[in-house]
Amino acid sequence: MTNESEVTAFLESRAEAQQAKDIDRLMSCYSPEIVYYDVVAPLRFTGTDEVRRNFLRWFDGYEGPITLETHDRTIVTDGDVAYANMLHLDSGERKGGVQRSIWVRETVCLRRSNGTWSITNEHISIPIDPTTFQVWLPAEKDQPA
Amino acid sequence: MTNESEVTAFLESRAEAQQAKDIDRLMSCYSPEIVYYDVVAPLRFTGTDEVRRNFLRWFDGYEGPITLETHDRTIVTDGDVAYANMLHLDSGERKGGVQRSIWVRETVCLRRSNGTWSITNEHISIPIDPTTFQVWLPAEKDQPA
Repeated sequence: MTNESEVTAFLESRAEAQQAKDIDRLMSCYSPEIVYYDVVAPLRFTGTDEVRRNFLRWFDGYEGPITLETHDRTIVTDGDVAYANMLHLDSGERKGGVQRSIWVRETVCLRRSNGTWSITNEHISIPIDPTTFQVWLPAEKDQPA
Repeated sequence: MTNESEVTAFLESRAEAQQAKDIDRLMSCYSPEIVYYDVVAPLRFTGTDEVRRNFLRWFDGYEGPITLETHDRTIVTDGDVAYANMLHLDSGERKGGVQRSIWVRETVCLRRSNGTWSITNEHISIPIDPTTFQVWLPAEKDQPA
């Protein structure tokens, strides 16, 4: 396998774990040194304990499974380092809050050690509307293809 | 120079260009294929024309120079690929909007081609408060060291 196909398979396995809310399988993707910038506060989560708790909180916000569609993904690798950037359309049924699909931007940074890739940094966000300082939810006409 | 010291120098030069609002020097850091996820909408900016216009809009929001402090930066490189993650404390004087320092998270993804590093993906964001869907501004006690 090339590095790029390894990272592609890694990210597809991670997406399956997210959608199935399989916390142990999901956490196996992360380095012990993970620094995670999430959509929601605080500024960052560091280490697997904080990241695990935050994923469980995320899982708990949905009635059933989480539906994620990946769009416009690019993967770049050399040696034992890789990064990937993508958009996610998140359309699971939430227990409260916004009841519609939400576009999220994601950057994933990976290292390979002893032949195994793991995520050292992850960054997820929603852009804000600079006039209202609220979350920006694109109208149909402004959505990515 | 090691790869890491090259990327460190690259990022420090970029920060100087940002604070001085030197658009040509700043744009020299970006690949023609740049995909940029900014704090503000829309979801992404693609290509140097869109990114340049967005930087000029950003510059124009400040009365004078932009003040950025970099905290907790990590740089990882191998071969011709690198990524960096950091927090920025942005405390320039703004023309409208929020008149206080703001913490921003940043991920920068770079490739080296013909000996020159350039940014192919950048991701800047502020976390949101999940209960109000508004920008989250940390209290003094919650700020990074």
